[in-house]
Amino acid sequence: MKVVSVSKAHDGIQGVYTHASDACACDMTFAVFAPPQAKDGRVPVLWYLSGLTCTHANVMDKGEYRRMAAELGLMIVCPDTSPRGEGVPDEKDNWQFGCGAGFYLDATQQPFAKNYRMYSYLTEELPRLVAENFPADMARQSIFGHSMGGHGALTIALRDPERFKSCSAFAPIAQPMTAGWSRPALEKYLGPDEAAWRAYDATALIEDGRRFPEFLVDQGTADGFLQDGLRPWLLEDACGKAGIALTLRMQDGYDHSYNFISTFMDDHLRWHAARLAG
Amino acid sequence: MKVVSVSKAHDGIQGVYTHASDACACDMTFAVFAPPQAKDGRVPVLWYLSGLTCTHANVMDKGEYRRMAAELGLMIVCPDTSPRGEGVPDEKDNWQFGCGAGFYLDATQQPFAKNYRMYSYLTEELPRLVAENFPADMARQSIFGHSMGGHGALTIALRDPERFKSCSAFAPIAQPMTAGWSRPALEKYLGPDEAAWRAYDATALIEDGRRFPEFLVDQGTADGFLQDGLRPWLLEDACGKAGIALTLRMQDGYDHSYNFISTFMDDHLRWHAARLAG
Repeated sequence: MKVVSVSKAHDGIQGVYTHASDACACDMTFAVFAPPQAKDGRVPVLWYLSGLTCTHANVMDKGEYRRMAAELGLMIVCPDTSPRGEGVPDEKDNWQFGCGAGFYLDATQQPFAKNYRMYSYLTEELPRLVAENFPADMARQSIFGHSMGGHGALTIALRDPERFKSCSAFAPIAQPMTAGWSRPALEKYLGPDEAAWRAYDATALIEDGRRFPEFLVDQGTADGFLQDGLRPWLLEDACGKAGIALTLRMQDGYDHSYNFISTFMDDHLRWHAARLAG
Repeated sequence: MKVVSVSKAHDGIQGVYTHASDACACDMTFAVFAPPQAKDGRVPVLWYLSGLTCTHANVMDKGEYRRMAAELGLMIVCPDTSPRGEGVPDEKDNWQFGCGAGFYLDATQQPFAKNYRMYSYLTEELPRLVAENFPADMARQSIFGHSMGGHGALTIALRDPERFKSCSAFAPIAQPMTAGWSRPALEKYLGPDEAAWRAYDATALIEDGRRFPEFLVDQGTADGFLQDGLRPWLLEDACGKAGIALTLRMQDGYDHSYNFISTFMDDHLRWHAARLAG
């Protein structure tokens, strides 16, 4: 692991790191905020997964998580959203597929299966790397994210509920299998058999019996992707039938941007901290 | 004035606007955060001037001012750092001169005198535009900024102390006339006669009798520009001799980045709000 940059912020350290990833067969970059409490011992880890087009840097720059994470003693880990670099297949003019659009799954189709393995990266390789290199208490992990990353947080938590104390999302994609901006990506990564897609679809996972105790979801009412791309009512319906406690808050007038995310960041951090305190 | 974008944030509105500037003879872009209190009447205005290479967008994205500005009821106006666009003379490979490096002065030398008139822009044209288009209480203005913009805030306040209730800076250039990264710019904008530079140099203005009641300055000790470019001790010395109350806080381990700015943003906003309350 190489240090790209470290910078003091709110008495903690905001760092950016790279490493040669086995899971993704390329160099991967990620950001870690170590709160001041990490000087004195291991601290809980909150994973933040970003949305389409983002790298690790967008939420690091615009998410406004450091002040409250420092107050609460949370380590914030912000991975990239896909493999990148020379040799990684991409569709340069398509922001909904390829680099910046990994959808947090393990691709099975060529030529994507070699690199597009964000699910394995986030569930195996990166947690191991974080545990080895940072003062992280891996017995206390939570996860959240935005849009494609909000959905990634939901699916990863549903598939491994023992790993996480809590899971929340900003404007998550509720059902990527049936949304126009994600269906083509799932087909290219996973092939035409939609049965294989269900392992990476939050509502399908719930329908298929996966459970997580509770979710907190914030969704802006002025979000241009609400009606066609995000559709939180599908998640609400699935959670209702499954008995999962979903707190879905429709936030009046907020859009899909980091202005929305940063407005409710403190709320989410406090919510996770309360569940990580045990 | 045209609206580029508006986005709800912390129950206020973060907007970006453009207009055809007479002062700079080009289109100029600026950002305004209107806090929720602006729905009910005019609110105090706090001007933020950015550093070298920045546009209006850097502090809007990374400055983390909205939450506290919304709490305190402050309007935050973030101008660009220079004229821009086709026909504006520039040195593309020089980040210390031209676009992104206007130094908040009125150039007198050709070919820069037509466009590089940020002093007039910020002291006459943009305040008028803000007063006409936003619920701004122009009887309650304060000013702050970072690096070149911290220096801009100091000089503008020193030259027009009646306009501002308070002035603060993050890592300001204390004496651009004698710093290597700013001397060449002053010569190109203002000509070889250094007497003309003194109107745009904070320590020279103080030496020449300009006064402002008090300044708050934060400076990171790990700032790579501290020793050669910023040198707050020169400001401290000038303020000491002039009887200006300077609170200079050396912040251990902080660098020159937005991680430093955002860490102390709340402090500065509260400090200005207390002085704007009257």
